[in-house]
Amino acid sequence: MTSFIDETHDPQRASWIASAQGHPDFPIQNLPLGMFSDGSGGAPRGGVAIGDFILDLAALAQSALLDDTARQAAQAASGDSLNPLLALGAGPRRALRRAVSALLDNDLDYRDAVMPMLHPASTCTLHVPARIGDYTDFYVGIHHATNVGLLFRPDNPLLPNYKHVPIGYHGRASSVRVSGTPVLRPHGQLKVPDASTPALAATRRLDYELELGVWIGPGNVPGSAISIEEAGQHIAGIGLLNDWSARDVQAWEYQPLGPFLAKNFLTTVSPWIVTAEALMPFRIAQPPRPEGDPAPLPYLLDADDQAQGALAITLEVTIMSERMRADGHAPLRLSRGPASNMYWTIAQLVAHHSVNGCDLNPGDLFGTGTISGPTRDAYGSLLELSRGGAEPVTLPTGETRTFLEDGDMLSLSGRMEADGRVSIGFGTCTGLVVPARAG
Amino acid sequence: MTSFIDETHDPQRASWIASAQGHPDFPIQNLPLGMFSDGSGGAPRGGVAIGDFILDLAALAQSALLDDTARQAAQAASGDSLNPLLALGAGPRRALRRAVSALLDNDLDYRDAVMPMLHPASTCTLHVPARIGDYTDFYVGIHHATNVGLLFRPDNPLLPNYKHVPIGYHGRASSVRVSGTPVLRPHGQLKVPDASTPALAATRRLDYELELGVWIGPGNVPGSAISIEEAGQHIAGIGLLNDWSARDVQAWEYQPLGPFLAKNFLTTVSPWIVTAEALMPFRIAQPPRPEGDPAPLPYLLDADDQAQGALAITLEVTIMSERMRADGHAPLRLSRGPASNMYWTIAQLVAHHSVNGCDLNPGDLFGTGTISGPTRDAYGSLLELSRGGAEPVTLPTGETRTFLEDGDMLSLSGRMEADGRVSIGFGTCTGLVVPARAG
Repeated sequence: MTSFIDETHDPQRASWIASAQGHPDFPIQNLPLGMFSDGSGGAPRGGVAIGDFILDLAALAQSALLDDTARQAAQAASGDSLNPLLALGAGPRRALRRAVSALLDNDLDYRDAVMPMLHPASTCTLHVPARIGDYTDFYVGIHHATNVGLLFRPDNPLLPNYKHVPIGYHGRASSVRVSGTPVLRPHGQLKVPDASTPALAATRRLDYELELGVWIGPGNVPGSAISIEEAGQHIAGIGLLNDWSARDVQAWEYQPLGPFLAKNFLTTVSPWIVTAEALMPFRIAQPPRPEGDPAPLPYLLDADDQAQGALAITLEVTIMSERMRADGHAPLRLSRGPASNMYWTIAQLVAHHSVNGCDLNPGDLFGTGTISGPTRDAYGSLLELSRGGAEPVTLPTGETRTFLEDGDMLSLSGRMEADGRVSIGFGTCTGLVVPARAG
Repeated sequence: MTSFIDETHDPQRASWIASAQGHPDFPIQNLPLGMFSDGSGGAPRGGVAIGDFILDLAALAQSALLDDTARQAAQAASGDSLNPLLALGAGPRRALRRAVSALLDNDLDYRDAVMPMLHPASTCTLHVPARIGDYTDFYVGIHHATNVGLLFRPDNPLLPNYKHVPIGYHGRASSVRVSGTPVLRPHGQLKVPDASTPALAATRRLDYELELGVWIGPGNVPGSAISIEEAGQHIAGIGLLNDWSARDVQAWEYQPLGPFLAKNFLTTVSPWIVTAEALMPFRIAQPPRPEGDPAPLPYLLDADDQAQGALAITLEVTIMSERMRADGHAPLRLSRGPASNMYWTIAQLVAHHSVNGCDLNPGDLFGTGTISGPTRDAYGSLLELSRGGAEPVTLPTGETRTFLEDGDMLSLSGRMEADGRVSIGFGTCTGLVVPARAG
């Protein structure tokens, strides 16, 4: 992946859409891609977030405002998922970005032509941006892996393969849903510590996991690997991902084949794909591995990826209980930390996943795994924050939490920042916990 | 699921298609569903296997030979996957079966009308029958779980959850391919026993796993469980499944989150869905659990399922090396055993998978997990047959195998038999091992 940065990243560029200036997530330098339905009941179609508005890509594709390449991209975003656009790769995606950036530029004169294609975001419904063929969840947060390992396997927290293999497993694509989907407390087979036999019950240890979601662009030919050098061409962009987890179900079911029903009741993603192009100013060096750690094997090692394969993202999690809402409290920050706590880069995940010839496809989703920092203020799950339920978190109302309670609203957010650049964000990724169904 | 059996199961019913009589797999009592393309380059569409022919369901849907319900089913099988037909459920599927059975019946006079809709199977290409949204692999073969457990965890072969939880994990949907797809020996990160560090290499321990594949019909509403009593309504049919495995990759990568790249390079399925209707005469009681084993929890327990939730299927695996082919040998049988070596019924798998509200969808695929018997002649993988590579299998040429070599052709087959019934089968599920790509 080149470090080419074009006029769409110019910090001086401002939009004629007033709400875009200083917008925490969607200034004109971001222009993320998503799927939306407008308030009048139209079919879902592709859009670009700009300030408090969504630009309708299906309408734009019908206009005379685009060159051929950008129109091809907008047309590919006019159907019922972004998969066709994701399949086109970086060229058309960048052409569309440059065209949209110009159309929204305050110094250019497209306001009258573009205005009819804008919808107030508050009147729209957002959808999962792609039809996800397969969803894979990795485990790149080394502090998370260590913290959880200590709880599940005190004698053996970080297994011998961890620093060699980007550990991952297949998740459930069908239950990936968009931010705002209620989190129905799931039932599951679990075994409480003192019981002699397991039982079916609503989970008592409902948790979140703070992750990034990676959206795959063009796929590979089945049987052929994607090299680490080429990996960037297959990454369309990223968003936020919450890997909701039922810890009591997980503890009972996960051996020997890994998590299953403890995770697949729901995975929430933020609705916007922040593109690889938008992320370019925020690329940073992968932090050096601690002394004594093994070097990645050659198929996972690329100088360019090491030099700029990590991202300057600050991630944050907040909680708001029902009583906090009633009492007028602000959400409580549970954690805050950098995404550079990932032991592997996203390009390394792509190269590893395909090294055996497994075919990736446009619209596939990777979760990075929970991104925790080395200290408690940056732990990415309640399992870690409460040390397995032993140390409750206190809320401003005096309530305490070891795991999530019904009525809790959990929000993930992330912010990309770099010197001399306009910051961008993902929007939020939220879920409100609702009581289990009866029975 | 009722035990209702109609005229389509009549052992006296014969077809005017001569090759159907006595056909090991596809007599008129079977009528499995699949996707095919004919030799003239037509688009893939649904078909029914009958003897050495395939009946074109898209052509049949256009005819005047069907009543409304059967036509609805045939139309749903006329597109590029069977998913719409699977979504319709048992009613339309059974109506189509009864219509097709009558149209092919030697005692009725539809020969001239139906003949133009038949294609010789040998001139057709078969496809994966459904667009698989999600693929889940279970672990119901208790003898397999014990045998493998002994190799991977000698101190702890069968974990405490095994007899309570139908253990399963998510597999990769994108790399599920149809019988006959070459098995490209995959590369992977692995660690040979004496090495101090892992390396990227072509697997040296390529193996097969004998499984049944379960095709899901109608799905459930997200968040709502499918009860064990209702599970049968969501099962469209079954086929054979080979869960190819790279054992050296698996041993190194699988902890703590389960198998990943060791499995997701390829999973092979037989092309035909033998429907729940065709299977009805072969339903048998689930074998009683050994004394001392726990009873299934109530959400997994149904008297009807216990009485007739298992299937009288004899499964068989053969191998044919390159030299065996050259020397004119017949394939060597590696194992033969009953599918009743499953510790859980298929209905139990459906009930368990959805107990947390995870949504199943039409065309989803379950693998049962490797079905091994208690003795070596019924072991469902080379890992078990060779006891982890320690005891080679000898081929008729004098060659030996601990794991699969390039040029080996592996075939799974299965046969449903019951007193007074015409036997039916799945067709074969084959794969030829081809050398790893260079590099």
